[in-house]
Parts: sequence; C-alpha cells; structure tokens
Amino acid sequence: MGALGVPLRPHVKTCKSVEIARRMQGPDSPGITVSSLAEAEHFLEAGLVDQVYAVGIGPGKLDAVAALMARGARLAIVLDHADAARAVAAAAQAHHCRYRVLLEIDADGKRAGLNPSDPALTELARLITTSGNELAGVLTHMGGSYGCRGARALAEAAETERLAAVTAAERLREAGHACSITSVGSTPTAAFARNLNGITEVRAGTHVFMDRVMAELGVCTEDDIAISVLTEVISQRASAGEWLIDAGWTALTTDPGIGGPGFGYGRVCDAHGRPVGDLIVRATNQEHGIVAAASGRALDPNSLHIGQRLRILP
Amino acid sequence: MGALGVPLRPHVKTCKSVEIARRMQGPDSPGITVSSLAEAEHFLEAGLVDQVYAVGIGPGKLDAVAALMARGARLAIVLDHADAARAVAAAAQAHHCRYRVLLEIDADGKRAGLNPSDPALTELARLITTSGNELAGVLTHMGGSYGCRGARALAEAAETERLAAVTAAERLREAGHACSITSVGSTPTAAFARNLNGITEVRAGTHVFMDRVMAELGVCTEDDIAISVLTEVISQRASAGEWLIDAGWTALTTDPGIGGPGFGYGRVCDAHGRPVGDLIVRATNQEHGIVAAASGRALDPNSLHIGQRLRILP
Repeated sequence: MGALGVPLRPHVKTCKSVEIARRMQGPDSPGITVSSLAEAEHFLEAGLVDQVYAVGIGPGKLDAVAALMARGARLAIVLDHADAARAVAAAAQAHHCRYRVLLEIDADGKRAGLNPSDPALTELARLITTSGNELAGVLTHMGGSYGCRGARALAEAAETERLAAVTAAERLREAGHACSITSVGSTPTAAFARNLNGITEVRAGTHVFMDRVMAELGVCTEDDIAISVLTEVISQRASAGEWLIDAGWTALTTDPGIGGPGFGYGRVCDAHGRPVGDLIVRATNQEHGIVAAASGRALDPNSLHIGQRLRILP
Repeated sequence: MGALGVPLRPHVKTCKSVEIARRMQGPDSPGITVSSLAEAEHFLEAGLVDQVYAVGIGPGKLDAVAALMARGARLAIVLDHADAARAVAAAAQAHHCRYRVLLEIDADGKRAGLNPSDPALTELARLITTSGNELAGVLTHMGGSYGCRGARALAEAAETERLAAVTAAERLREAGHACSITSVGSTPTAAFARNLNGITEVRAGTHVFMDRVMAELGVCTEDDIAISVLTEVISQRASAGEWLIDAGWTALTTDPGIGGPGFGYGRVCDAHGRPVGDLIVRATNQEHGIVAAASGRALDPNSLHIGQRLRILP
C-alpha cells in the first residue's frame, strides 16, 4: 500500500493487540478497523480513537456507539439500508450526537452493501445528512477475493473493489455530498492491487500473521506465517500410523479452509517452527488433533514421541 | 442416569459456569469433568475440587497438574501410553506428589485410548502403581455415538461403551489392581443407556443446554434447547429474498453439524425464542449471517425488519 501511496487502517480483529496495532500503523495511518464494539472499547481505552466499525450497524447498538463517542471515540459506523439510516437519525436526536456514517458498497454481488449504481445510494446519503449526521464516505470489502487463485485474478479482484468504491464515491459527490473516505480492504486485494487511485485507505489485517490460506492464494509463502499453536503429542495410534496431539478444533479450527486433500487443519512443525516432513493435522475432534502424513502413508512408530512439543501452522 | 443408579460427573466444558455446574451435580455426584487445565483452575477456585481432566495428559502439563493438586485439587488425569506413564512416574518423583490416573479405553476403535483387550492395559497399570501413583480406574468416551441415528442405535452405542469400560476394569482387577472408577460419558449414550451395571459415573455435559444436533439424534426436541445467540437484523438482501444479521461464524459456528440441506447454521427464532417460520441461518461470513427459508423460497420483503432482534438456536 505504501508503494501505491495509500495509508493502512489495519483491521485489528486478527491481532487483537494494541501493541501490534500500533506497529501496523504507518505515520499516515488514519486509525484502525474493528469488527465489534468490544474491540472498539478495548482499543479506545488504549488511546486508539479513530476507528471504523466495519460491520453493518445494528440499530440496537447505536446507544453503545454514542456512549463510546462520548468517551472520545472517533468511530465511524457502516450501513446500507434506509431503515438503518432512519434509526441513526432517531438515535442522534435522542443522544444529541452526530454519527459518522460510511455507506457500504458491494463490489462483487456476494456481500453486504449496495451496488455502486443502486439509486438507493444517494437517497441514503440524503437521509444521513438531512438528519444532521456526517456522511464520512464509502466502504467496501472484496470478500470474494478469497476465492481467487493466482496473481492475475487477485489483481482483477483488487481493481473491481477499487472501481466499486470510487464509482460510488463519484456518484455521491455528483449529488452534492462530501465523501472524504473511500475505504477498501482485504489482505489478498491489498497485496495485489496495482492501482489505488481514488482510494483513501486500505483496511487489510490478516497480513499481520498470514496463514496457509494466504499462502495457497499466493499472497505469501508458508515461511511468512508468523503465528502458530503450540501443542504436545499425547498418544500414538500405532495401528493407523498416526499420532494424537492435545489440540483439537477448539484450539485449531473446524474450517478446513480452501485446500484440497492433504491441506488438513494445520501444518505440523517442530518447536522451532520448522515443518516436520509432510505432516499435517489430518482431522480434529473437540480436544484432539490427529497427525498424519499429507501423502496418506503410515507414519513410522519413531517419527514422533509422547510429550514432544509441536507447532501447528494455521 | 438417576433412574439407572449412576451419578453424574457433569462435563463443565459446555456450561463453563460454576453456578450451573453446581446445579448439575446431584447429591451423589463425585465431582466434575474438565477439558483443560484453565477450566480445572477456574472451578478449583470456586471449591469444586474433585475433577477428572478428561483429555489424554500431555507430559508437559504434569508440573501444572502438580501445582493444582498442591492447591487442593483432587484431579485425575488420563493416559493410554507407556511413555506417558513413565513421564508421570518421573514427575511424581520430582514434585513429591502422587498422581491419580485413569486409563483411557477406546470403545469404538475411532477415538483415543486402548482397546479393552490390549495387553498394554495391565502393563500400564503396573507402571503407574509401581511408581507410587494411584490407578484410579478407567475412562471411555463414545464419540461415535454422535454418528448414530435413532433410539436403538444409541442404546447399542451406550451398551458398547459400558461393555468396553467394564471389560477393561475387570481385566485390571483380575491382574490385582484396584479400579474404583469406571467412567463413561456422552450426552447421547447417557440419554439412551438401558443398563449401566458396573459403571460408577457418567460424564455427560451437552445435555445442560442441548442443541439441534441432539434434537436431530432424537436425544431432545428443539423446545428443550436452553441457549441461543441474540442478534439483530442489519440489512436486507431484497433481490435474493434474504436478510443479513450481525452474527457470523465468530458468533455462531463454522460447523454445519450433522444436518442435511435446510439444517444450516442455526434456527431463527424471535426474541422470545419462538421459531420464525422455517427460517434458518443459511450461510455465514465472519461477522454476517444470511437468513433464508429452509425451503429455499425467497422471503417476503416484510417478513423481518432492520433492527429486529432474533435468537439463533444452536
């Protein structure tokens, strides 16, 4: 993003850490992105006041948003429906406050938000500004980029995302509205964008640690993954040529991600983070993981030992 | 279990609550079951000292177990491998303590534990007792019961589980070992067991709240589900005849459970917990749920409204 001249507003839902969030912010960073009001409060207490709450606002949360603003949060909320805009108008009157609103734009027809050409866009902007609230800009999230493979598809997804945000912003400006923020964000599109003209901020966050999904997309290599789950070998399934670790889906994931056979629920590394052969977590129970060879061959009975510490790469 | 004369040692990993754990324990309850040392510590601090840590012990955790015992925990650990028993012997010497050990038995060939007829069983018992530690008994968990359908299959699974535990205990006693605990446990088998002869405790826990998986198995009805996720409608996908709620897989689950099409990631109820038509959470993103009809028909644009509170049944 730096090379393209657009600052990062890091999504802190991945790191959940104030220290790391501070380190992710460059000198031009406008602030952070949060995915819940609990995160908003946590980071506000640490002095990170400029926040985008990047999930469509539930009207029932507007009281809590007003309370955070009263405590100093410069918190922007997101919506895409006239009823939500009317709820914002009513809450602003009740709390004598002025909400900062971003309109959510759907770049690929699969997520929340309005199509950039939807006539409702300017109607929503009018509802927000005539009720005395601030139209801060537009926001989009190219979730579909996780389904792309290869640099070209990811660069195209990034351009689709950019174009959706810029088109929506242009329409709002043509209708006489200020639109200072044009916010896009996902780690795959951030890494592959070749042009961010018209974009004011990028909200990527997964890149802070990366994972095997990102490696599979070509966004990074497995060497770049900066987080792992430390676990221990607790038993041997000698007859099956497998081992048991004390990390199951409560510690790892129930989600096999995007990989095919052999991808599993994690790559098995030694305590120093070096991959152990082609070992993967083949399957998980609630508290147990089953370690096997990605190739399916039975493991040698001496390949690991009870009590051995392993790191599982997500 | 009461009717069959066997006390419950409730698994508290489901409720995570001291108050609820106390209410689950009958007058004869020997204590509780935990799935992590964090749970063990939390419940110990509340005075619930008699605990089974029902996951195969990692040798690296034996120091922490000794520390909990020094603080008053009567904590039994579980193992199924000679190397783990040797680690217990060494740790007992280092900490001048006596571990309470349960041998894990595999009732269906799919989980952790030893086959009840495995010669290693008595060898393990000997390793534990000759090193001055306590062989408290045997433990099994019929995880495969979650794959059973109907009362007969579940009753058979319960009997398989009982027989595995009792057979292993008998073999240990024949070899001259005390074996005071024969512990079985899963909500489906607990509900369908017709005979628990020889069993000293049942470790069920999911029954505290139930869920749609249990309803699907026939263990309960959906009316019996005592927990839900409160969420709010945040947007309308009018073109698809769907609605968006602000609960995605971080609030609900990534696991579609055992249901077929139409099962989804939760049943949609009103704020009072009454089902709304045949609405389900059809799909989830990280923070968004998509509410649709189980039948697949498009929803009426007035079927719900922005800001409406809904309860999602797990």
